[in-house]
Amino acid sequence: MTTPVPASEKSRSNLPVNQQRLWDDLMALAEITEPDRKWTRRAFSPRFLEGRDWLVSHMQDAGLEVRLDTAGNLIGRRKGSRPGAGAIVLGSHTDTVPDGGRFDGPAGVLAGLEVARALMEAGVTLEHDLEVIDCLAEEVSPYGLSCVGSRGISGTLDEVMLARENSEGEKLVDGIRRMGGHPDRLAEAKRSDIAAYLELHIEQGTVLESSKLDIGVVTAISGITRFEIIVEGRPDHAGTTLMTNRLDALVAASELVLAIRADAVERAKGPGHFAATVGEFDIEPNAANVVPSRARLLIDTRAELRPDMEAFAVRLAELVEETAGRHGVTIAPPRRVSDNPPTPSTEALMKQLEGACDLLGAGHRRMASGAGHDMAWFARVAPAAMIFIPCLGGRSHCAEEWTEPHEVAMGAAVLLETVKRIDAALP
Amino acid sequence: MTTPVPASEKSRSNLPVNQQRLWDDLMALAEITEPDRKWTRRAFSPRFLEGRDWLVSHMQDAGLEVRLDTAGNLIGRRKGSRPGAGAIVLGSHTDTVPDGGRFDGPAGVLAGLEVARALMEAGVTLEHDLEVIDCLAEEVSPYGLSCVGSRGISGTLDEVMLARENSEGEKLVDGIRRMGGHPDRLAEAKRSDIAAYLELHIEQGTVLESSKLDIGVVTAISGITRFEIIVEGRPDHAGTTLMTNRLDALVAASELVLAIRADAVERAKGPGHFAATVGEFDIEPNAANVVPSRARLLIDTRAELRPDMEAFAVRLAELVEETAGRHGVTIAPPRRVSDNPPTPSTEALMKQLEGACDLLGAGHRRMASGAGHDMAWFARVAPAAMIFIPCLGGRSHCAEEWTEPHEVAMGAAVLLETVKRIDAALP
Repeated sequence: MTTPVPASEKSRSNLPVNQQRLWDDLMALAEITEPDRKWTRRAFSPRFLEGRDWLVSHMQDAGLEVRLDTAGNLIGRRKGSRPGAGAIVLGSHTDTVPDGGRFDGPAGVLAGLEVARALMEAGVTLEHDLEVIDCLAEEVSPYGLSCVGSRGISGTLDEVMLARENSEGEKLVDGIRRMGGHPDRLAEAKRSDIAAYLELHIEQGTVLESSKLDIGVVTAISGITRFEIIVEGRPDHAGTTLMTNRLDALVAASELVLAIRADAVERAKGPGHFAATVGEFDIEPNAANVVPSRARLLIDTRAELRPDMEAFAVRLAELVEETAGRHGVTIAPPRRVSDNPPTPSTEALMKQLEGACDLLGAGHRRMASGAGHDMAWFARVAPAAMIFIPCLGGRSHCAEEWTEPHEVAMGAAVLLETVKRIDAALP
Repeated sequence: MTTPVPASEKSRSNLPVNQQRLWDDLMALAEITEPDRKWTRRAFSPRFLEGRDWLVSHMQDAGLEVRLDTAGNLIGRRKGSRPGAGAIVLGSHTDTVPDGGRFDGPAGVLAGLEVARALMEAGVTLEHDLEVIDCLAEEVSPYGLSCVGSRGISGTLDEVMLARENSEGEKLVDGIRRMGGHPDRLAEAKRSDIAAYLELHIEQGTVLESSKLDIGVVTAISGITRFEIIVEGRPDHAGTTLMTNRLDALVAASELVLAIRADAVERAKGPGHFAATVGEFDIEPNAANVVPSRARLLIDTRAELRPDMEAFAVRLAELVEETAGRHGVTIAPPRRVSDNPPTPSTEALMKQLEGACDLLGAGHRRMASGAGHDMAWFARVAPAAMIFIPCLGGRSHCAEEWTEPHEVAMGAAVLLETVKRIDAALP
């Protein structure tokens, strides 16, 4: 079952890709979902393997030679004319979050597939190999790890990660095996032959939509640092303890929430993408008649520019000290729970992407990605860049996730044109 | 095993009660506790019945005639000389919260017992009957209801309450039966013959301690009203959603927490006791990388004066509207989850208590009770008043709960002297 493209939509018949075919593919793959939780196709599930079967046959129809690498990535390859030139890779992922959408992941893989088909139909032979890669488990997997496949390609999937268990007690290493990988020969998945990596993804934000642009050229995957803060007060009786004689952990924590927000709003006005979110927040004893004695905050912080993150960390430590002093509560210095630095895109690839946009008449701008993507892992072993296409209202990871047929087609066309340019430009 | 009173403590040998005996009783009853959770003697538990067995034998030793009423209250009576004059009641409770203290409840019952003993030893015969009542389940019981016994005495224990179940599915009506009550004849527990009710309790706050006073004459049990507020925002991606394009429910809720606190601090400066506490606070989805989309606040509000509560309710509704408007989130008007008006003490009894304090040289002041007590239910059917004695650091409902031997003895002495005054003054 496919959704027809409404006639009212802006469509560009001059694009070198087949918009309707690409859209039909997106809708067809989406229908491979847990039936009662549209749209759900989690990595390591039978449904995911069903999706991959669909993809394998479509890759083969596109003339691609299909294989699984030892980390469980599905790779479709179109051989180039010059042996040893390396591969130009178009990647993303077909797994979804639970109750997710139809585009986060599949749009990039199926755009890559459409590029391969367009090249085949045009009879173009590239010097480089072209690979379309469906990376295993980009979303947080049942083992608690994201980007399993692209970590494998970057050579950073280690023993500790492989030993992580899902809720049934199965280890990740066995999950990869179940997906057809060979984790005992994981080193073979690491790549050193990638000439360029490109990824298309929905923006998951509203920058392109609000500026009516077609393409975001991603300058960097923002760094992600998470800080934990514990506020310790005193569990007094809510009825008998005077307002002026309390050590209320919730009141102190609320001030921190507002101060963090205010700081992040200011910092986001700077040149690099910045966001800070108190996403997890719990109090104890959480009882109606007891003054809260403890609060825990988990702050998710994203920064395109590492100095912004460091400056925020310094300010956060100050805020914590000031708040503790003002309220008489105890707050330990913020603890860095996790810390991933930003990953910049390769400038030469960004320029090629911009050139392709200009040729195709696509409105574009540079912007950072606030979210993590497979590209961050490929960037460890190869030149890498990515583009965003608009998505409705910035909604993502939900059933309402939406991008227009012409928007994803324009993205695929930019990829195609960029692949041709890179193929010519690279040694 | 008893704790001896340190010699260093202020002690008043001229008090008409036996301080050491009263203290020994408190320590002995406290030892009847769940062994691994000192101090725990929850209503409806075998341990609670063990405590009552101890109390029955001590009441009998004090010359009291012991019975259980149909609501499960344990009553020790000393007959007065004038039939039909009614009873002067000294009440409180021997049940504790889980992991509670040794004084919240037992101090009042055992002070009453000491008064009865002192009268017996002094050979005093009162005109009125004197009753010492251990009210069943003053603390929130496993059936979710507090003040079970005193509600029974006030005639307000209804069918809906009796049908409440504990976690094992046992109904309260069967629990009362297990405690020796006769819930099928509950109407017999309702009293209309009480001439005066008096209760001694630890303050559970720091007013007396910080002003170095012996006795608080309680002017009223504060009203308790609970409001629920639900903030609805939008669950955006924490990495990709611009700081200026969020509907963050936690940020809006944090502003409410601070505004509620600021309002309560101001209102508490007025003539009546006032406190407002956000005691329960939860957010959804409570996930690190998602902007909080929902927050729930439960506000526990105490007011000695009903107009304060009504004014707060009006202000709270305004705050909610202002906050919703400022942040673009949706907040329904605050919902009154429960609402108990304040219960004033009987002025004539407060005057007698103050006279007794003056006679005994006890420093005293009037003050409201922020917490609920059995007295609030007796006040529905009889003149009623209560006194507070100091407790260390205001700590209560915890193992560290503490009051000094001479402090509880002074309280018992004030009760004794007041009983004698009331007996003479009442018709």
